[in-house]
Amino acid sequence: MTGADCAVRGSFFDLLDNPWDYLGREHEAARFLADGLLVVKSGLIADFGPFEDVIVRHQGLEITHLENRLILPGLIDGHIHFPQVRVLGAYGNQLLDWLQNWIFPEEIKYKDRDYATNASKHFFHNLLAAGTTTCQAFTTSSPVSSEVFFEAAAERNMRVIAGLTGIDRFAPDDYLITPDDFYHQTKSLIERFHRKGRGLYAITPRFAVGCTTAMMDRSRQLKEEHPDCWVNTHISENPTEVKSVRDFYPDCRDYTEVHEVHGLLGPKFTAGHGVWLSDDELRRFSSSGAAISFCPMSNLYLGSGLFRLGRALDPEFRVRLSLGTDMGGGNAFSLIRVLDEAYKVGMCNNTLLDGSVNPREQDTAEAERNKLSPYRAFYLATLGGAKSLYLDDVLGNFWVGKEADFIALDWTAGQPGTSWHQSLITTEGPTSIEQAAQLLFGVMVVGDDRSVDETWIAGKRLYKTGDTVEAG
Amino acid sequence: MTGADCAVRGSFFDLLDNPWDYLGREHEAARFLADGLLVVKSGLIADFGPFEDVIVRHQGLEITHLENRLILPGLIDGHIHFPQVRVLGAYGNQLLDWLQNWIFPEEIKYKDRDYATNASKHFFHNLLAAGTTTCQAFTTSSPVSSEVFFEAAAERNMRVIAGLTGIDRFAPDDYLITPDDFYHQTKSLIERFHRKGRGLYAITPRFAVGCTTAMMDRSRQLKEEHPDCWVNTHISENPTEVKSVRDFYPDCRDYTEVHEVHGLLGPKFTAGHGVWLSDDELRRFSSSGAAISFCPMSNLYLGSGLFRLGRALDPEFRVRLSLGTDMGGGNAFSLIRVLDEAYKVGMCNNTLLDGSVNPREQDTAEAERNKLSPYRAFYLATLGGAKSLYLDDVLGNFWVGKEADFIALDWTAGQPGTSWHQSLITTEGPTSIEQAAQLLFGVMVVGDDRSVDETWIAGKRLYKTGDTVEAG
Repeated sequence: MTGADCAVRGSFFDLLDNPWDYLGREHEAARFLADGLLVVKSGLIADFGPFEDVIVRHQGLEITHLENRLILPGLIDGHIHFPQVRVLGAYGNQLLDWLQNWIFPEEIKYKDRDYATNASKHFFHNLLAAGTTTCQAFTTSSPVSSEVFFEAAAERNMRVIAGLTGIDRFAPDDYLITPDDFYHQTKSLIERFHRKGRGLYAITPRFAVGCTTAMMDRSRQLKEEHPDCWVNTHISENPTEVKSVRDFYPDCRDYTEVHEVHGLLGPKFTAGHGVWLSDDELRRFSSSGAAISFCPMSNLYLGSGLFRLGRALDPEFRVRLSLGTDMGGGNAFSLIRVLDEAYKVGMCNNTLLDGSVNPREQDTAEAERNKLSPYRAFYLATLGGAKSLYLDDVLGNFWVGKEADFIALDWTAGQPGTSWHQSLITTEGPTSIEQAAQLLFGVMVVGDDRSVDETWIAGKRLYKTGDTVEAG
Repeated sequence: MTGADCAVRGSFFDLLDNPWDYLGREHEAARFLADGLLVVKSGLIADFGPFEDVIVRHQGLEITHLENRLILPGLIDGHIHFPQVRVLGAYGNQLLDWLQNWIFPEEIKYKDRDYATNASKHFFHNLLAAGTTTCQAFTTSSPVSSEVFFEAAAERNMRVIAGLTGIDRFAPDDYLITPDDFYHQTKSLIERFHRKGRGLYAITPRFAVGCTTAMMDRSRQLKEEHPDCWVNTHISENPTEVKSVRDFYPDCRDYTEVHEVHGLLGPKFTAGHGVWLSDDELRRFSSSGAAISFCPMSNLYLGSGLFRLGRALDPEFRVRLSLGTDMGGGNAFSLIRVLDEAYKVGMCNNTLLDGSVNPREQDTAEAERNKLSPYRAFYLATLGGAKSLYLDDVLGNFWVGKEADFIALDWTAGQPGTSWHQSLITTEGPTSIEQAAQLLFGVMVVGDDRSVDETWIAGKRLYKTGDTVEAG
């Protein structure tokens, strides 16, 4: 791995464990250094700790001091669509109509290398401006879009997961790909891009509505032949979609079984959404080590429903979760905005769980798990996302040896009222982990993409407030 | 009315009628002038129309040309809390706990004139930066906050509605006000501020949980003695609150009847939220001419629930609706952000109304009404809001004779991806009403407060992108 050597001084906040396991003492799952120093060598974290301790081991180092900022690990987006960068926020339909009316007509343009290349400039600029340093992305059914995606990520030295996105029904004819073509082109792309630089490959059957049994069989074959690869898909986003899957796969008792019988459910498997999964399905996700990417902004935008966050985090069958923008189903690139929506989904779930509407639905333990404290929120966006993607050996926090992707948050940026709001907590900068967490809660519900002042990839600053995109 | 004379040239968009009455031809409810001219005299619209037509009637006029902007009537916020400017986005509780933990401790500070005055600078700066030119605001139980509010609005020559906010139970003792004090202080404030300049007074019993029968009786007396005044309150926000009202007012069959028996329900009465109102209650709102302020951002933020937008707009019992931020229950000042959330609430309602979950809940007509097109959205934020507040004689669109409050929207501003997104519609600026509407949809779901480039009050520009607040 390449990456400029650097040393950054400032206030650091990261998660070391899952705060849902630390009820009433969530701060014990996190770490805060009011004055810390992060030393990067060859793109990796070479040293980290209190400034006074670390500096003595690195005399003569040139230090970048990020004052009045909170430095966090880079944000991880578990579910995003590269070829939807231009059509985020399309009007008016739920999932299946929205795909036909807006999404496929745009995605088909990505057969054209020039269009895809220009789009990649927008896409990665938007990611970096949002503080997202790693994403797991869908591309299109054309290998051009995957090639362009991996090349653009490599230029920026970014840790990404992506793959040719297979769909052989339920799309315009010229957008479909046959299972055989999907198989051969996927193998070729794995050869070229998997574990080249920081690129990782995901075998990507789009979703069961759009994938015949033959396509799912080819996906299984690919996973068997390339067990090191990831698998990325969608599941149980919308009630009508769930019903379609029952019709298409009548031998499967539920949506999850479609993936089970094709040998996909397990570690390094992520399905976006999961809004309508049953308890039994959540249990099978949990026991198999499979992950869900929780996409609240998209679930609200497309009217898909409220993900049962507290249920998926039941300690009896806790599911690995990442956060996803699902951009363009989600109408922003910012995971900070997604945290705002995730908080709202949890709060809305709790309207029912407090039993005030129907006493039979009361579940105060589940309601407690729905509450997205800043510890929990930024866990999902960093270490939790990394764990769900089986990338926590290299990403997610500031452990020495991990890759040096991080962001500097300006807790006073955002809508004009942000600064005065945050002054309730501190005007001097946080001196305790509680203050840092409170400022971060302000960032997630009062701030937005403007809160991200700088984004660093493998020890190199790739975004600073005010940077604009060089694209057409 | 004072206000600098001016003339503004540019592209104008406004609503002339309710687009819900124009199914399939909503553009007929709106007006678009690609090149228009608005002439202001003494703060009122003196002339308006196509530039070529209007200019011949006003030779020698100094013209401000707002290029690459969409000029709309100023946005109207039907429900906002002045003394919550600093605590927007407070963590973790539903309505009743949130009030005790966060809101009352902050609002009590507004007894102090210096604190309230400083807060008013933040509040009005935030409003103007969000493009909000008129609001109906709650203050506190201290007359100081109402005085400061009206004085600050008058300094900016803004059309506002507000009033001393009465609460005589369910708050800290030193925050409560007796019904007698509420009565006498309200009368004094009406005398000083109602119809002085652009100020309008609302008799404001906070909500039935916090108001005894004695407080409600005094509110009725005030409305009888001052029938020209507005009435502003809350209703049916949260299930636990609804249950409390049943306990407090056992003789009333529902929450709405509390206001009926106290002579308040009718024209110029607005209640915020109404999430849990029954069909029968909606019918009584409709027939009495009373209004609901729809606050989707707050309803999601506090987990109050999903307002049945399509139901409240049933042509059989259509209710007058404004949009409200409910800031601080809503976590932003921007009505553009509120439109995004309103769109999402409508879409989530429709998950059930399409019958895919439960065929008994299918109602495609109601589902259609839930879809927040840009025509409908900006109607609610301008003319619809004005109608709900009985201010459409002076606000809401560019009819000659109305007050000249307007905003200039930059449809490319917002998150970094906005400009390329909007380029799908036009890069030259809109030439048709359909293009203008599509750009406005992009503003509401991809843009945010940054979309507001300029805000003009009574013909005078009070906000321009980059302006900051002069407050402590």
